[in-house]
Amino acid sequence: MGEFEAIVSEKAKEAQARILPFLLAEEGVQKTVFSAMRYAVGSGGKRIRPILMREAFLLFTEETKGSVRADMLHAFMAALEMIHTSSLIHDDLPEMDNDDLRRGRPTCHKVYGEAMALLAGDGLLNLAFETTAQAMQRAAESMAADGNIWDMRTQVSDADPMMLRKVAQANKILAEKAGTKGMLGGQVADVEGEKKPELTMENILFIHEKKTAALLQAALMIGGCLGGASPDEVERLERAGYDIGLAFQIRDDILDVIGDQETFGKPIGSDAKNEKNTYVSLIGVEKAEEEVIRLSDEAKAELAALPGNHDFLENLIDWMTVRVK
Amino acid sequence: MGEFEAIVSEKAKEAQARILPFLLAEEGVQKTVFSAMRYAVGSGGKRIRPILMREAFLLFTEETKGSVRADMLHAFMAALEMIHTSSLIHDDLPEMDNDDLRRGRPTCHKVYGEAMALLAGDGLLNLAFETTAQAMQRAAESMAADGNIWDMRTQVSDADPMMLRKVAQANKILAEKAGTKGMLGGQVADVEGEKKPELTMENILFIHEKKTAALLQAALMIGGCLGGASPDEVERLERAGYDIGLAFQIRDDILDVIGDQETFGKPIGSDAKNEKNTYVSLIGVEKAEEEVIRLSDEAKAELAALPGNHDFLENLIDWMTVRVK
Repeated sequence: MGEFEAIVSEKAKEAQARILPFLLAEEGVQKTVFSAMRYAVGSGGKRIRPILMREAFLLFTEETKGSVRADMLHAFMAALEMIHTSSLIHDDLPEMDNDDLRRGRPTCHKVYGEAMALLAGDGLLNLAFETTAQAMQRAAESMAADGNIWDMRTQVSDADPMMLRKVAQANKILAEKAGTKGMLGGQVADVEGEKKPELTMENILFIHEKKTAALLQAALMIGGCLGGASPDEVERLERAGYDIGLAFQIRDDILDVIGDQETFGKPIGSDAKNEKNTYVSLIGVEKAEEEVIRLSDEAKAELAALPGNHDFLENLIDWMTVRVK
Repeated sequence: MGEFEAIVSEKAKEAQARILPFLLAEEGVQKTVFSAMRYAVGSGGKRIRPILMREAFLLFTEETKGSVRADMLHAFMAALEMIHTSSLIHDDLPEMDNDDLRRGRPTCHKVYGEAMALLAGDGLLNLAFETTAQAMQRAAESMAADGNIWDMRTQVSDADPMMLRKVAQANKILAEKAGTKGMLGGQVADVEGEKKPELTMENILFIHEKKTAALLQAALMIGGCLGGASPDEVERLERAGYDIGLAFQIRDDILDVIGDQETFGKPIGSDAKNEKNTYVSLIGVEKAEEEVIRLSDEAKAELAALPGNHDFLENLIDWMTVRVK
């Protein structure tokens, strides 16, 4: 493991520790689904999305332990990872990609059955919004000192009077980037693409933008928004998220051609097997590599215009887009 | 069609008219999923949940056209119906109940394929929370006159200073009643029950409470909450929702035994076919009928303690729980 990878791995553990408390205890009549949800979320991903969210947050403010702001951040980190995991569970189902393995472990439906995996995916999508709804409620209550009057003059907590508006905005970003005009829309285009003999570059870019970039955008935008970014800064983070997502996905396509199963952990050529063309098959490895670099540089340029220390984020972008160990 | 049924049908049309604008236009790359979502929502249900929500709201306040309050109500009516429809789409999938017909029409996956139906269900669940997130954002903005400062003293809209807190509370109710501790938890218990040779009364009550009552509770509670109900009144609505849900579901079990396909619109004995025992098979039709009446009376007694005119709601409860035309 490289030096930077060790740092990312440490950050992933920190993110994980903040996310897991939002999952439900494996007890009661519904314990099987709680267990399936936990299995899927706990499957050792890189936690790129919650890490990006936290790093974007830290550009603008500090993560003060016990503060309303940090509480909101952690709830949204968990919610985003839940939505991501929900999409992976459903994506692996037989009617979608019909995958037996995910990150080297049996997929959720292979362990818990298809009906339970379907419900675990629904459960995580719902729990994501339950988590943000509960956080919003806490934010609202922290701002009304006597529990009755919404009055900023009597606030007793560390809550910024603007906090609830920021949380409402973060929630809107989350829902829009996850939905049928965002990530789910990418899944739809992907399914539609399966039926076509060939994809155009426009098709492929749409799928990559929605299926991959949308949740990375959400991560950066929500982190910034909760941290106190201005609308312009949130837009900058949105553009950076697009660049990172596209670069990440093109890199994924490149690895699909040149990588090998051992280093990448999923069956190589799985896209080719499904007879889909890719970004790389349309313009070739060399040009694709150039585009990855151009996009990464563009993302870094966006970050350079933001306050705070961007070193880690810049290294993370490089690491995400040059993922051959 | 009976006189009251005609009134309900008219209310359903009104609810429908408030819900449909929240669905997405069937255009763009994702138009197939927008179309599948619209097909499922538009499939002519009775709109019991949005009707209940609106009637509970009207116990406490007026539905003033163009007001923030009415805007919130309509967004939540749409969101609840979307969540309900999402659960029906997924419930009909082959890995769940594998149903070909729903309300006399081919199920979503029969028309759009299983992958698209899966995504349409996910899309509706997500769109529900997108709809409430956007509503919350509008509520937040309506309260900050200059768009910058969260200051109740400068409000220019009809917004009650408490409105955003109420909306946050309504959103929390929606997420909790829909999730794995609510409706989805009922689905889980149902799937688990399929594997058992026999269900206990406790199992059956749990499934009915979660799978059926939870969203009816959400309807009444959210309507009350947005209308201005006190916490005690919201709890009363929650208890009424439980009674109505259970009575409704026991009536459903009774009809499954004594009804006929033509009047009820779904294959009779479908539960028996799946070899599940029901509330009725455990205690018999007569005692089940008594319990329906007891529960309906209890629900009406809860409503009697609330302000406003309850005539329609009381009739609706009778109609819902004595659904033999």
